[in-house]
Amino acid sequence: MTAFDALADVVGPAACLTDPHDLEPYSLDWRGAYDARPTAVVKPASTAEVQAVVARARDEGLAVVPAGGRTGLCGGAVALSNGPASIVVSLERLNRIRDIDARDFSIVAEAGCVVQAVQQAAADAGRLFPIQWGAQGTAQIGGMLSTNAGGIRTLCWGNARELVLGLEVVLPDGRVLDDLRRVRKDNSGYALRHLFIGAEGTLGIITAAAMRLLPPLRNVETAFIAVPSPDAALSLYGRFRESGADLVAFELAVRHSMELCARYGVDLRMPLPLDAPWYVMAEIAAAHPSVPLRQMMEETLSGAMEAGEVLDAALAESEAQRLGIWKIREDYPECSRHGGPAVNTDTSVPVSAVPTFLSKAIGEVERRWPQGRIVAIGHAGDGNIHFSLQVPEGWEQGRPAWVAATDGFEALVNEIAVSLGGSFSAEHGIGQSKRHAMATHKNPVALDVMRQIKATLDPEGRMNPGKVLP
Amino acid sequence: MTAFDALADVVGPAACLTDPHDLEPYSLDWRGAYDARPTAVVKPASTAEVQAVVARARDEGLAVVPAGGRTGLCGGAVALSNGPASIVVSLERLNRIRDIDARDFSIVAEAGCVVQAVQQAAADAGRLFPIQWGAQGTAQIGGMLSTNAGGIRTLCWGNARELVLGLEVVLPDGRVLDDLRRVRKDNSGYALRHLFIGAEGTLGIITAAAMRLLPPLRNVETAFIAVPSPDAALSLYGRFRESGADLVAFELAVRHSMELCARYGVDLRMPLPLDAPWYVMAEIAAAHPSVPLRQMMEETLSGAMEAGEVLDAALAESEAQRLGIWKIREDYPECSRHGGPAVNTDTSVPVSAVPTFLSKAIGEVERRWPQGRIVAIGHAGDGNIHFSLQVPEGWEQGRPAWVAATDGFEALVNEIAVSLGGSFSAEHGIGQSKRHAMATHKNPVALDVMRQIKATLDPEGRMNPGKVLP
Repeated sequence: MTAFDALADVVGPAACLTDPHDLEPYSLDWRGAYDARPTAVVKPASTAEVQAVVARARDEGLAVVPAGGRTGLCGGAVALSNGPASIVVSLERLNRIRDIDARDFSIVAEAGCVVQAVQQAAADAGRLFPIQWGAQGTAQIGGMLSTNAGGIRTLCWGNARELVLGLEVVLPDGRVLDDLRRVRKDNSGYALRHLFIGAEGTLGIITAAAMRLLPPLRNVETAFIAVPSPDAALSLYGRFRESGADLVAFELAVRHSMELCARYGVDLRMPLPLDAPWYVMAEIAAAHPSVPLRQMMEETLSGAMEAGEVLDAALAESEAQRLGIWKIREDYPECSRHGGPAVNTDTSVPVSAVPTFLSKAIGEVERRWPQGRIVAIGHAGDGNIHFSLQVPEGWEQGRPAWVAATDGFEALVNEIAVSLGGSFSAEHGIGQSKRHAMATHKNPVALDVMRQIKATLDPEGRMNPGKVLP
Repeated sequence: MTAFDALADVVGPAACLTDPHDLEPYSLDWRGAYDARPTAVVKPASTAEVQAVVARARDEGLAVVPAGGRTGLCGGAVALSNGPASIVVSLERLNRIRDIDARDFSIVAEAGCVVQAVQQAAADAGRLFPIQWGAQGTAQIGGMLSTNAGGIRTLCWGNARELVLGLEVVLPDGRVLDDLRRVRKDNSGYALRHLFIGAEGTLGIITAAAMRLLPPLRNVETAFIAVPSPDAALSLYGRFRESGADLVAFELAVRHSMELCARYGVDLRMPLPLDAPWYVMAEIAAAHPSVPLRQMMEETLSGAMEAGEVLDAALAESEAQRLGIWKIREDYPECSRHGGPAVNTDTSVPVSAVPTFLSKAIGEVERRWPQGRIVAIGHAGDGNIHFSLQVPEGWEQGRPAWVAATDGFEALVNEIAVSLGGSFSAEHGIGQSKRHAMATHKNPVALDVMRQIKATLDPEGRMNPGKVLP
C-alpha cells in the first residue's frame, strides 16, 4: 500500500489530494512568504478520521501540518521548504456545531467551523461570540485556538484562550484527549487545554472546543477621536475604564496610517480631518438598553477635552456610521499594502508603557532610517502595537530592497518592547517567521521548558516541525 | 554539614524550624484530616532563597512541600504521612507587593502576600482585585494560584487563573522561570504559566505573580431571594445575565443550609422567613454610578415573580444589609459544622445541568441514606455545588461512624456530576483527599499526559509528592 492509499483508505480518495494543482492553495501561506508543496493534503471529516490520519502518517514516516482557514501571518499552516516529507491535514470538513446551549451560555464547535459561522450561530441563539477580526470569514475555530487569536475586541473579553471551557485534541501518538466538558470550574489537575491553545499544532491537533458565549450587546457607542499624543491616548483609556463603561475596543493609529486609509480606501469616509498626530477608535458597550452609554461617552470625552487629552471627536450617530468607523480599521491592512512594502512587527508592552514604547521606537527608527514612513496602529488598550516602517513615497526598488535597507528594524523594535517588559509576538504567533525572534528574545528557561514538553508529547517531532520552537 | 545546617545556611537559623512545637502548625492541615511532621519548616524571604532551598533539599534528598496560608481543604500543603522525608517551604516571608500600576490596571505581588493585603493595596490605588473568599484574611497569593482558587465572585471575573498576566516560578531543578511580564497579549510559544497555576506545587513553587486589576465597583445591588426550585433559579440566572447587568455572584442554597445559619449563626439575620425550598443570593454591579442598577434588579425580579420563578425577595437597602446577606454566605461553613459531621463534595456541571444534577443527587441520596440531611449550597452561576450529607438530628456516634454509614456517598455524587459532563473537583483542588477520585473519574488520557509532564519537569518526584496525581 502506498502512503496515498493508506491515507485515502481513511478519508476516501476524494478527500486526499495529491494533484499539484489541488495542492497549490495549501502550499502558499497567506502573506505569500512561504511556498512548500506537501506530499498530500488530507481532509478528515471526523475526530476518528483525524486520529487515523495521524496514526497512518506515523506509520508512513510523514510529518503532519494541521491547517484551518490558513489566514495566519507567520507561515504556521504550510509545510516547511526543505523540511521532512509532510502532509497538510486540513480540518475544513470537520465543521459541525455540535451543540449550542443558550441557557448555559456555551457552544461546542468543531475545528473546521468558520469563525463567522460560529458568530452567526451564537447570534441566532440570542448570544454573543465575541472574538472578531478581519479574517473571520475565512479563519476557522481550530486555527483561532491554535494561534490564540486576538483582534480588536480582546480588551474586554480576552484572547481566544479565555473563551475556552473544554477541548478535544488528537495527540501526536494518535490518542484523543477528550476534554470537551462545558464546566466553568474544574480544578482536577493540570490545565492541559492551555498547552494546546496557542501551540500552533506542534503538540497535537485541536479537533473541537467548548466555548463560552455572552449576552448580546444591545447598546453601543463608538467614536473616532483625534488626540495629541500616545500619552494623551493612555489617559483617555484610563478615563474610559474608570467611567464604568465596558470598553470593548481602543485602537490607536498614527496619522500616516489614517492617511493611507483616506488615500487608498474604497468606500471609506474619514470622520475627522486628518490634521492631528494620532487617532483613537474607541467603543463602549452595554448589554442593557437603559445604561446611559451616550452620556458616559460624552462625559468621558468632554472631561478629556478639558484636560487637553482630546483634540476633536466624532461620535457614530447611526449603526451605519459605526460600521464606517470599524471599516477604516478593518480595511487598514489592505490600504496599507497599497502604500508600498513595509517591514512589520507585532509587539506588546504593559498598557502604561505604550507611550514610552512609541517614543523610543519612533525616535530610534527615525534616527536610523529617516527615509522611511512610520506606520503604527494597534490595540493600544491591550498594549499591542503593530509598528511598521514603510517605503518612502516613490520607492520603486521593490520589497526585497526595502527589507535590505531596513535591516535590523524588527530586532530593534522587538528589543525595545522586550526591554519594557513586553513581547515580540503579541497576537500573530511564531510560525516560521518569528522563530529567529524566539531564539533571540525568549527567556531561555521558558524555551527550555517548552522544548522539554515538546519532546515529551511529540518525541518524534512529527507535529508541525519547524514551527514555534527555534 | 547536616541538612539543618545546609538549609539554615540559606535562610538563617531563625527561619529554619525543627523544634517539634514550631513544626506543629505546619503539620496539621486546615480540616484536621492530615497530620504529618516535616523534617523542617524553611522560610525563604526572596526568590533567590527559594531557589537555594530547593537546590539544598535536592542535595539532601528531601522532598519539598510548598505552603502558603494553608487554608486549602484537600491536604495539599502538608507533608505526607509515611511519605519521604520532607521540608515544608513556607512562603510567608516572601510577601512584598513589588509593583502596583493603576494606569496599567495591574499588580505584581509575591507568593506570601495575604490575599486581603492585595485587595487592600488595589483599593488604595483606586482599583479592584476581584478574587474573594472566606479565607482571604489568611490565604496567600501563592496558594491562591497554586490551587486556582474560586469563591463567590468567579462568575464575572473567573477563577484566580484568569487574573494572571505573568508568573515567577522556581522549578524543581532550582532554576527560575522568570515570566513576570505584565502584557495582556503574548503569543510567543506555549502558555507555561497555566501549567503551574492549579498544579498545587507539584511542578514548582510560584514565587510571584503579575495580575490584572479592575476599575472599582461604584454601584451594587444585592438580593436574598426565595425560589421554588433549582430550575426556577436557573431561569432567574438567565434573566439576570440577559438583563445586561454584570452578575457578580449567584449562590444557591437548599433551605436546610439556611436553617443551619439561622440556628447557629452569630449576628446573622435572615432577610426572609425560611419557608421556601431554595434560596438564591445574587449581586449585580456596575462601575458607573449612573447605571440604573436598582431598576434592573427590580425589573428582573418582578419578571421572574410573574413567571413563578421567584416566591419572595429582599433587597439590601444599605451597605450594612448587603454585608449582612454576604455574612450568611461566609459564615455558612462554620454554622454548618455546628450542625454536626457531614460528608462533602465539590462538584461542578454545566450551568444548565444544575437542576438535573440536584434532582438526581437528591433522589439517589434520599433513597440510599434517608436518615441524612441534605446540605447543598454553591456557586450555581458557575455550576459549582457543594452537595453534602449531614448526620440526622441527635446523632451522637461522631464523625467516623457517619462516614462509615454513608460509604459511597462521595463516589455517587461525583459520578452523577461526571455523567453530566461535570467535574468531581470544581474549586478545592485534589491535594491528598481527592486522589482516589482522580483515579476513578479522571479521563485516563488526561491523567497520562499529566504524568508525562510531571515526570519531565520533576523527574525525581521531589515537588509535593503524593499530591494531585493518583
